[in-house]
Amino acid sequence: MSQRGSSFPGPLSTVLPWSFSFQPRDFSLPNSSWGSDMRRLYEHYNSQWVWRRLPSYNRSLKYTTGTVWKVRSFSRRLVFTRNIREQRAAFEYVVFVNKQEQKCVCVFQAGHLLEGPPGHVHGGAISTMIDTVTGTHATYLSGPVMTANLNINYRSPIPLGSTVLLTCSLDKKEGRKTFFPCQVTNTYSSKLHTEATGLFLSITMGHLLGG
Amino acid sequence: MSQRGSSFPGPLSTVLPWSFSFQPRDFSLPNSSWGSDMRRLYEHYNSQWVWRRLPSYNRSLKYTTGTVWKVRSFSRRLVFTRNIREQRAAFEYVVFVNKQEQKCVCVFQAGHLLEGPPGHVHGGAISTMIDTVTGTHATYLSGPVMTANLNINYRSPIPLGSTVLLTCSLDKKEGRKTFFPCQVTNTYSSKLHTEATGLFLSITMGHLLGG
Repeated sequence: MSQRGSSFPGPLSTVLPWSFSFQPRDFSLPNSSWGSDMRRLYEHYNSQWVWRRLPSYNRSLKYTTGTVWKVRSFSRRLVFTRNIREQRAAFEYVVFVNKQEQKCVCVFQAGHLLEGPPGHVHGGAISTMIDTVTGTHATYLSGPVMTANLNINYRSPIPLGSTVLLTCSLDKKEGRKTFFPCQVTNTYSSKLHTEATGLFLSITMGHLLGG
Repeated sequence: MSQRGSSFPGPLSTVLPWSFSFQPRDFSLPNSSWGSDMRRLYEHYNSQWVWRRLPSYNRSLKYTTGTVWKVRSFSRRLVFTRNIREQRAAFEYVVFVNKQEQKCVCVFQAGHLLEGPPGHVHGGAISTMIDTVTGTHATYLSGPVMTANLNINYRSPIPLGSTVLLTCSLDKKEGRKTFFPCQVTNTYSSKLHTEATGLFLSITMGHLLGG
């Protein structure tokens, strides 16, 4: 019965007690769809103790207990950047933060379902990653925030299927406002694809979880 | 045999001659997932001759013959805003243009797979629609363009599942540059959610189709 349970977890998970110990999948861990550039940069940052990998789930955070974030497991809602099951098809990415230097990097492999101009990544998919990375960094440093402004300069199109590096730093704080410049480059940082600034407003936990 | 063909179009389409007369689906036509706000605004604009509905496909444009755009039918690539098959789940939208007044509107119903802050639309999904609508308008007025800059102010979060209106106009032209302000409001235009400006650069057809 337990073997059958593991073969058919869907129906049984609604009646068996262990369904309550559900562990959400961390999408920022390597999978077989990652190309050599993704793997190389993952290993590069993951091997240095000053960089901390942030986990990434496909459902939004439900509530906190102390400093522990929990994930809403049984909603139909999915986080925009993790809403496609097929690996390699859309957003494959992992974010690392460096608290000492207040920097953040994201390795992003752009799949074939993100097309905008023929053969290239949609400007909206690029802005989505910029919002995600700067917002993640702002939240890591300042707690709950909302995006107030994104100003994005598209310098050079990103070929579909390629891997790029997003680099983000804290520029300044002004009261509830924090400003984060972000550059999107090739994986050797020798070609600039996009540069942007994200402005975020600190908000209360009730504001974040309301609605 | 013809009945069976229509029931199993996948396998047969590879051997029957009529597979070459493939008509791509126009995603900007009403479907059963559209809520009352989507339908009301669709009827409003569709019933006025000054507004022209633009078709929308899930694959990028392959080439032109004179003024006729053709759609690349057999690629695995999908346009970012049309990459999810399930109706209502992600981006449901229709764009209308008013050539006389150089204006453009988009009715957009935001599905449950576009979540950012809990219960609300991801800032990247909003910027994606702004890029799509301003870029569509720029292309309609000026021919092939690339996004050069998006400057987006997020004023008020958009609840997941709601329908909003994007309104876009031509501000000015400076050589190859065109500037398009864009507002995202509720369907009665009484509440401003987001305001933005899109800057586009005219490019050659070869630039658009290359790569």
